[in-house]
Amino acid sequence: MKKDDDNSLFHGFHSLGELGEFGLIDQIAGLFGRKFEPDAFGIGDDCAVLPYHKDRSLLVTTDMLIEDRHFRRDWITAEDLGYKSLAVNLSDISAMGGRPEYAFLSIGLADDIPLEWLEQFFREAHRLCQNNGVKLLGGDTTKSPGPLVLNYTVLGSVATENILWRSAAQPGDRIALLGNVGESGAGLKLLMKNGLNEDRRYRQLIKTHNRPRLFIEEAQYLAGFPAVHAMIDLSDGIDSDAGHIARRSGVGLKIDIERLPIRLVVREVCDEFSWSAEELALTAGEDYGILFTIDEAGLNQVMKSFKETFGYPFSVIGQVVEDDPDVLYFLQGNPFSLEQHGFDHFKS
Amino acid sequence: MKKDDDNSLFHGFHSLGELGEFGLIDQIAGLFGRKFEPDAFGIGDDCAVLPYHKDRSLLVTTDMLIEDRHFRRDWITAEDLGYKSLAVNLSDISAMGGRPEYAFLSIGLADDIPLEWLEQFFREAHRLCQNNGVKLLGGDTTKSPGPLVLNYTVLGSVATENILWRSAAQPGDRIALLGNVGESGAGLKLLMKNGLNEDRRYRQLIKTHNRPRLFIEEAQYLAGFPAVHAMIDLSDGIDSDAGHIARRSGVGLKIDIERLPIRLVVREVCDEFSWSAEELALTAGEDYGILFTIDEAGLNQVMKSFKETFGYPFSVIGQVVEDDPDVLYFLQGNPFSLEQHGFDHFKS
Repeated sequence: MKKDDDNSLFHGFHSLGELGEFGLIDQIAGLFGRKFEPDAFGIGDDCAVLPYHKDRSLLVTTDMLIEDRHFRRDWITAEDLGYKSLAVNLSDISAMGGRPEYAFLSIGLADDIPLEWLEQFFREAHRLCQNNGVKLLGGDTTKSPGPLVLNYTVLGSVATENILWRSAAQPGDRIALLGNVGESGAGLKLLMKNGLNEDRRYRQLIKTHNRPRLFIEEAQYLAGFPAVHAMIDLSDGIDSDAGHIARRSGVGLKIDIERLPIRLVVREVCDEFSWSAEELALTAGEDYGILFTIDEAGLNQVMKSFKETFGYPFSVIGQVVEDDPDVLYFLQGNPFSLEQHGFDHFKS
Repeated sequence: MKKDDDNSLFHGFHSLGELGEFGLIDQIAGLFGRKFEPDAFGIGDDCAVLPYHKDRSLLVTTDMLIEDRHFRRDWITAEDLGYKSLAVNLSDISAMGGRPEYAFLSIGLADDIPLEWLEQFFREAHRLCQNNGVKLLGGDTTKSPGPLVLNYTVLGSVATENILWRSAAQPGDRIALLGNVGESGAGLKLLMKNGLNEDRRYRQLIKTHNRPRLFIEEAQYLAGFPAVHAMIDLSDGIDSDAGHIARRSGVGLKIDIERLPIRLVVREVCDEFSWSAEELALTAGEDYGILFTIDEAGLNQVMKSFKETFGYPFSVIGQVVEDDPDVLYFLQGNPFSLEQHGFDHFKS
């Protein structure tokens, strides 16, 4: 197949690094399609959506983690990896407003993995399943010639009328955020400096990186309000993930940097090591907070109900505008440029 | 965790190799459970089974392929891998009597994968989807620090009353087989000798290994007959896969070696290289034929209908007996012992 063949899938690109992760996904989606009759929606959101029981839809998400790419065994305990590898998939289900129900795990194991490691991994996965009413129904076990490989597929369900699409943001919406940002990214930077031998003051940052908090109940609760429009979970960082909402909804997202929920400990560690807390908050991945847009008219009532139910607020960090589909940042009202943009698995 | 702790998951075992693949799966199944209310069935068959639309059940299967473990890029073309990596999952759906419907692909890519390779891979996967009415609805793309990793999850559906369980074999059933055996195993042995530079006479054996034939329509057709009881696809070889039916059904399986459908070309290549065609037919994996048990009283009618519909017969290779759950082999009526048994990912 010639590079200059106009019919080639990757016309004009010469390598995977040049094409990028989202370029690859776009081409695959173009080949296979995104929407199918009746009411089956594929590539383009946190989960695929399928017709299920009468008023409910089935949600499906899948996620691959490869050792030395997504995790290192000396940077995360078996127990925490047992939690995190499943948790990131539960987060995708919750980001559509859904309830996770069934999990499937494929695991490629190196020969040298100790049985104690496996036991801790599986016991913690089991605990997370039990705590969330999730049933592990199957998977695949195999040997890996190299890295440990984990792939979960999680099925969930959602009342069809409550599905929160990335494409549903509307100009005038406020942009809101559940959870803090920058903590997981700071934890990763600490791991890169010293591994798990961290300063006690910063232990919690690494713990947050290795055991991200989930917002399953909260996201389902929010999905019940018609004022809540679009939603996504923060797996690649606000810059990348808000960009998905912008492009899928065809709107601009304006984010006020000073409103980002960055904890003091993140600012402290950033000061100590001369990192930018704002860059970390916007571009570091794996926070697994929930970003959503909400009709301004409904904001106060939803915030009040949410606080009464969960005992804490969500953050309001910006607004949706009629503009080119992009994410723009402002600091005290002035445009703010990021030094680098969100994570791309093939470009970075 | 101490090795002599009676409550440990892997009590009495000291390594993964000692525990074995099926030992690991048994322990995981014991921890997570196999059957859930209402009507959700997990680990233990070709697919998990979930309640779906009124009279239909949802089937879910997942399969991980890791480069240099399950395939080598110099032994299979991108196109054939695009076919095979999805096909083996479609085979699992058909082995429950189901129709495959939706696919999800996680792919971990090394940096150096040429875009041409990816294009051929995805175009062939797309062709296989189209030919079988399967929709690719999502997945995950990521970089791999080493091997290419592929994980498909496939969802299918089946009329609940037609589900073909591994546990449904009954004493008195005949054992039947769709497809030939030994061909894929011979192809693999040829690849191990000379890679893709094969003798032209044996090219078809390697092609069969790299592009196994599927029996999706045939298996669905058989599932419509109440006389057809248990079914499994041959992924690990008759010895291993028939063993699953024996254990899950609590019956003995007696197989007559001389009835195995082994093609002449397999016997020829075995003669040339002093391989045992019978050992290959029973213990080499990846034939992806369909093994099933059928009520003796219904056999003739099902065989007649099947031949009229598809133009070829299935093979009858043995019978189910009331005995310890094991597979026994006979050659001209005399007991026959295998030199080695079916494939175990961790022991072999």
